[in-house]
Amino acid sequence: MKGTDIQPVVLLTDFGLKDLFVGVLKGVIANISPRTNTIDLTHDIEPQNIHQAAYILATSYKYFPKGTVFCVVVDPGVGSSRKAICIETEDYFFIGPDNGVLFEAANDNTIKKIVQLTNTAFFLDSVSNTFHGRDIFSPVSAYISKGLDNIEKLGQVEKKCVEYKFPKRVNKGKSISLSIIYIDRFGNSVLNITGNEFKQLVGNNNFLLKVNGELVENVCDNYSQGKDNHPFLIAASASYMEISLKNENVAKQIGIKVLDQVVLEIV
Amino acid sequence: MKGTDIQPVVLLTDFGLKDLFVGVLKGVIANISPRTNTIDLTHDIEPQNIHQAAYILATSYKYFPKGTVFCVVVDPGVGSSRKAICIETEDYFFIGPDNGVLFEAANDNTIKKIVQLTNTAFFLDSVSNTFHGRDIFSPVSAYISKGLDNIEKLGQVEKKCVEYKFPKRVNKGKSISLSIIYIDRFGNSVLNITGNEFKQLVGNNNFLLKVNGELVENVCDNYSQGKDNHPFLIAASASYMEISLKNENVAKQIGIKVLDQVVLEIV
Amino acid sequence: MKGTDIQPVVLLTDFGLKDLFVGVLKGVIANISPRTNTIDLTHDIEPQNIHQAAYILATSYKYFPKGTVFCVVVDPGVGSSRKAICIETEDYFFIGPDNGVLFEAANDNTIKKIVQLTNTAFFLDSVSNTFHGRDIFSPVSAYISKGLDNIEKLGQVEKKCVEYKFPKRVNKGKSISLSIIYIDRFGNSVLNITGNEFKQLVGNNNFLLKVNGELVENVCDNYSQGKDNHPFLIAASASYMEISLKNENVAKQIGIKVLDQVVLEIV
Repeated sequence: MKGTDIQPVVLLTDFGLKDLFVGVLKGVIANISPRTNTIDLTHDIEPQNIHQAAYILATSYKYFPKGTVFCVVVDPGVGSSRKAICIETEDYFFIGPDNGVLFEAANDNTIKKIVQLTNTAFFLDSVSNTFHGRDIFSPVSAYISKGLDNIEKLGQVEKKCVEYKFPKRVNKGKSISLSIIYIDRFGNSVLNITGNEFKQLVGNNNFLLKVNGELVENVCDNYSQGKDNHPFLIAASASYMEISLKNENVAKQIGIKVLDQVVLEIV
Repeated sequence: MKGTDIQPVVLLTDFGLKDLFVGVLKGVIANISPRTNTIDLTHDIEPQNIHQAAYILATSYKYFPKGTVFCVVVDPGVGSSRKAICIETEDYFFIGPDNGVLFEAANDNTIKKIVQLTNTAFFLDSVSNTFHGRDIFSPVSAYISKGLDNIEKLGQVEKKCVEYKFPKRVNKGKSISLSIIYIDRFGNSVLNITGNEFKQLVGNNNFLLKVNGELVENVCDNYSQGKDNHPFLIAASASYMEISLKNENVAKQIGIKVLDQVVLEIV
Repeated sequence: MKGTDIQPVVLLTDFGLKDLFVGVLKGVIANISPRTNTIDLTHDIEPQNIHQAAYILATSYKYFPKGTVFCVVVDPGVGSSRKAICIETEDYFFIGPDNGVLFEAANDNTIKKIVQLTNTAFFLDSVSNTFHGRDIFSPVSAYISKGLDNIEKLGQVEKKCVEYKFPKRVNKGKSISLSIIYIDRFGNSVLNITGNEFKQLVGNNNFLLKVNGELVENVCDNYSQGKDNHPFLIAASASYMEISLKNENVAKQIGIKVLDQVVLEIV
């Protein structure tokens, strides 16, 4: 990382866009580091949904420039005894509450150092019990963005952080137990198996996949190949396999929810 | 256009703001061109609604600085055989799928050159079948933003692109057939006739305009002039005439939909 | 304020994000002042809700860098005889319609000068009757952002502006009449009494606060302390006391609306 560059700060929160919360985070950052490019990842995480935020972070972080500072505020325990942390990884910085939300992304990029944020010199002068995004996470992110040479200045080094992990697939012979790990706005329902893993497991065999009684018959290369009213599998942009339905919201149509389990049978 | 300036990139998509899609586009752009100012036009185009995106683009592009790169991702055919293109116009660059969405704006500014995006040197290393916004359109936009001297480097020059055109008004003597071409969040319903055209056609005559049995009686100069419960016409900000209703959503009240036809009678 | 710096422009509107309005404001600003950092405060103000915008502005402005230009477009009277103004305060500039929306924030920061925007040299060439955000407020904001040395160049100095004030609490002995002045996306319902004021008034006494028949029993230090199904008071991030409910939207649960009045009894 070039020491004198200003690094982007990426915001990921459950604040929505109706209130002043997101604007104020940007104000705090601009005040500390006027040249920082602050980028919204999304603010529409369901309130306090750590799984959803962890998925978004883990599947998108690597598209941002090396050195990017991710400021994640999905924080059901704000003001309680949960820690605030900064994780430095091979290429990035992840800032947020120590509730697991940062783990999958940070771990994927290889964790180098974890620091508990305790040095109030990097906080706003007055710290509330209800809005650490404003008072702690965004100012710390801005100082890192400006080029803090060592994150140990932010507080005390920790050996571990809370680890939230996505459900893993379970192979039992020719029966593979999978989970829905995300549903996007179009209803595409992401399974916890990548396109490559699927190819290796299924190969040239047929497969049987039923979701709420609905048969997912075949694999398409792109959305246009899908047939009307026939859900299909597709290797999607986050590299995971998705269940999709042409021009329809498959999740609504057949009632799929995040963390639902489905069984893939190789036949 | 000054060759060494960094030009803004304007994003127009149907991705919504709930998922990682828009954030990732910005990450890709920041990675290639850290100093680019990336601006959201809107991401709330209805999924795959080419008409709606074409209207937004055509009525807003000219308010952006000359040299701006418009990156448009409303792309029902992603991953199929539809082309990806860059259109250079008199003052701007328009990037997107070749499905007509760029045409009205580009044509309005005078098309100078059309290039099919085939040079993978300007794409991400790995191109998916489901997210060309990330893999093709945003990286190409970033390279142009940084100052590509000739868009022919992006691929092969094409003579034509797909042309999607707004419905035209039809004059039959004193009866003019019009279409609703847009409805905004306030319900204001845009007609495909400009304020100037309306003046020329109607002049000092009276007119009769009925929409779903509801009479639109008069023309107001500003929204405050409207009378409660009486829909009126107004020459609105995009220069087109709109049907409006004071403090109400006229589209919902009297059931107007995009592409509905209405007849204006000069009496 | 350093004269040669480019100051941020902060946008606060009721335009929503579905249409072209917000994108066009940013285009106009980028055209006049390419290096301006334009920040969204929120665009989800309810259409024409001056109170809501005034609250957001007044409780967030001070988190932005000194010199920030606030461009506020909540403008029911657009195109009518209402004035367009710029208020220079101790540390900031506030631009918008003269309908009261700017007052609480500007007054809180101490008003130094009010100028009616009449100098068309700072407007777009053509000014509509329906979109002064684009034609007047955003270009004026961009020129100030670039470093206008004296806002009197924008028009004529005014002695007063329209003053919209938040409802004040009324103390009648041990009975204090309060108002709900904001409800955030989580349902937290803000009262017009700060944490410090509450402490001074209630001290170590007990209190009785009923909202729609529902008892708000105690004061919590953070959201985690709340008990399920028991609404509580909390000194929240905007320094005001809020009524909250653990993991629930208290406003929806017990039917609280903005500007509702509640009575706090000290017992």
